[in-house]
Amino acid sequence: MALSFCYNAAMSIGQHTRREILSQPAAWSAALSAFEQRRAEILDFWARADFDQVIVTGCGSTYYLSLAAAQLLRQRGLHASAVPASELLLRPDAVCLPGARYLLLSISRSGTTTETVRAQENFVKAGGAAICITCDSGSSLAQSADVSIAIDAAQERSVAQTRSFSSMLIAAQLLAGALGRQPKNAGTDLPQACGALLDSCADLMRSLGSDARLESFFFLGAGALYGIACEAMLKMKEMSLAHSEAFHPLEFRHGPMSLVSVRSLVIGLVSPVAAAHELRVLREMQDMGATVLVISQCASEFAKHIALPPDLPAAYVPALHLPPLQLLAFWRALKNGCDPDQPQHLSAVISLDDI
Amino acid sequence: MALSFCYNAAMSIGQHTRREILSQPAAWSAALSAFEQRRAEILDFWARADFDQVIVTGCGSTYYLSLAAAQLLRQRGLHASAVPASELLLRPDAVCLPGARYLLLSISRSGTTTETVRAQENFVKAGGAAICITCDSGSSLAQSADVSIAIDAAQERSVAQTRSFSSMLIAAQLLAGALGRQPKNAGTDLPQACGALLDSCADLMRSLGSDARLESFFFLGAGALYGIACEAMLKMKEMSLAHSEAFHPLEFRHGPMSLVSVRSLVIGLVSPVAAAHELRVLREMQDMGATVLVISQCASEFAKHIALPPDLPAAYVPALHLPPLQLLAFWRALKNGCDPDQPQHLSAVISLDDI
Repeated sequence: MALSFCYNAAMSIGQHTRREILSQPAAWSAALSAFEQRRAEILDFWARADFDQVIVTGCGSTYYLSLAAAQLLRQRGLHASAVPASELLLRPDAVCLPGARYLLLSISRSGTTTETVRAQENFVKAGGAAICITCDSGSSLAQSADVSIAIDAAQERSVAQTRSFSSMLIAAQLLAGALGRQPKNAGTDLPQACGALLDSCADLMRSLGSDARLESFFFLGAGALYGIACEAMLKMKEMSLAHSEAFHPLEFRHGPMSLVSVRSLVIGLVSPVAAAHELRVLREMQDMGATVLVISQCASEFAKHIALPPDLPAAYVPALHLPPLQLLAFWRALKNGCDPDQPQHLSAVISLDDI
Repeated sequence: MALSFCYNAAMSIGQHTRREILSQPAAWSAALSAFEQRRAEILDFWARADFDQVIVTGCGSTYYLSLAAAQLLRQRGLHASAVPASELLLRPDAVCLPGARYLLLSISRSGTTTETVRAQENFVKAGGAAICITCDSGSSLAQSADVSIAIDAAQERSVAQTRSFSSMLIAAQLLAGALGRQPKNAGTDLPQACGALLDSCADLMRSLGSDARLESFFFLGAGALYGIACEAMLKMKEMSLAHSEAFHPLEFRHGPMSLVSVRSLVIGLVSPVAAAHELRVLREMQDMGATVLVISQCASEFAKHIALPPDLPAAYVPALHLPPLQLLAFWRALKNGCDPDQPQHLSAVISLDDI
């Protein structure tokens, strides 16, 4: 009786998070469909919106998504920058400067996060144009945007975003791809690639996440992968309360690496365009005693290496880094005695009544 | 003999860092002079440079300084953004976009940090205009800039930047002030304010830095104070190896606060423009058991409160947050058995021969 109770309790810990991580192939298919349904409308709106700069905004995970999305738009030649929604809301004059016409891209899983909703409302009231990406087509964010890309099928029960984040990122990747005139089918193999990846990395992620020798987790990524490194850092914190930080790879040498020890796992999200330099940083960290994990389209000499499909265009790669890192956080949570479904202190939506 | 040896050893641990922190009033006076010597030249160059966007860049501490400087320039209505020098060097096409004319503001204590020097060289070779802020007037960075603001008197022996950082920040504050047509004397009372502050906060910083109940340090700041919060986080890491992180205040609720406990010190760099919202976050963290320290021009109900001169214009305030936080890191280093002068793994300049 006691044993059976323990077994059932153990099985149920983190069950929503685990299911949501593993359901990403289906959620990404839903994201592809949601974007395709709006593709013509989005491109038409984009062409008519009369803007010369894009502001991408969100809170927490979706602020990190904004960092990645802004970089993807910049890689397409668009002047784009990311700010936390609180900055756009509380310091609008330092975000929207005279002499520029801005388009707002707001991102929120629930579509009800107060700072994001208020920031978009104020922006629209002042005559601005707004597109949003959300997992709730009926939310106030979706209702007050000019165009909304809503992926209702990616909504979650867990507090920590996993499939919702990656699905909204897929939408952002498709948006950047569409504006960059990538062919319509450029991202269609992502769900299958996600499924294959979840299978191939499962054992390694369980083993690293459960490894009692490791205590701190450093996520290094540059370009659009910096936002992804930040999100992986936040997942690790929320689910497991483990020490986790994110940096640009070459920035890591300028101070933060003082913390590196034999108890560190340094995770390199290595991009082909700067692989030689980024891999050198990882070699240095290995020489200092750290365990190194590489996730990349490039080859590397590291034993712990998760290979991503080498022929995928760079704009479609960021989301593929996430499933292994979500699994890493999940297993670390169980090792640390935390329930990934119920992060300490947190709730799924931050609603404030005084902003 | 043994006692005397221990005493001398204890006195010498961190002696350079301590001396450099305490010498900031003099270093800031040198920064004011260095800027005044170049004021006319800078304003003339600025007017002639034919740019419409500013990129501010550096590495490590000076990247965080770049974040603060870019925000100060934005508060003056200039389109400015900050990037790590490695991003400007390795992904120039995602930083400098077609259709904009950029001015580069490079920052480096030594003026020899490889990524910053190479990024500026490439930028100038491509026809761009560059200003630099450094503590070595003879450095290659100073030599290859169109105009250099060099504060040689702020140079340091310690690896971790303290007076050099704040002095270069003073120069950046004066630059933003000058472009915003602030009167020449607007920043002249900063050295005296720094001296008074070092005196008034000394006991509190020693007590908090030495408090064995505290284990993790969260620095919260928004606007230009976000870069300052990041620098305070890095000082704590470099000197003491303590757990330290920096976030925007309202972002802290969206995940990172999962780590808050009775062993946390949450430090609010509270800006007048958003004080009501930022203080509410700090109250919530106190309710979760954290110790809270406020540094601000505003009043607050918190017992641990460092008051900054209320009549100083916002553009001149960021530097004043640093001396207390440098002292906090210094005392935590001694408590943790670290030598603040010699951070683990680090050297004063990162020189790379393969970039």
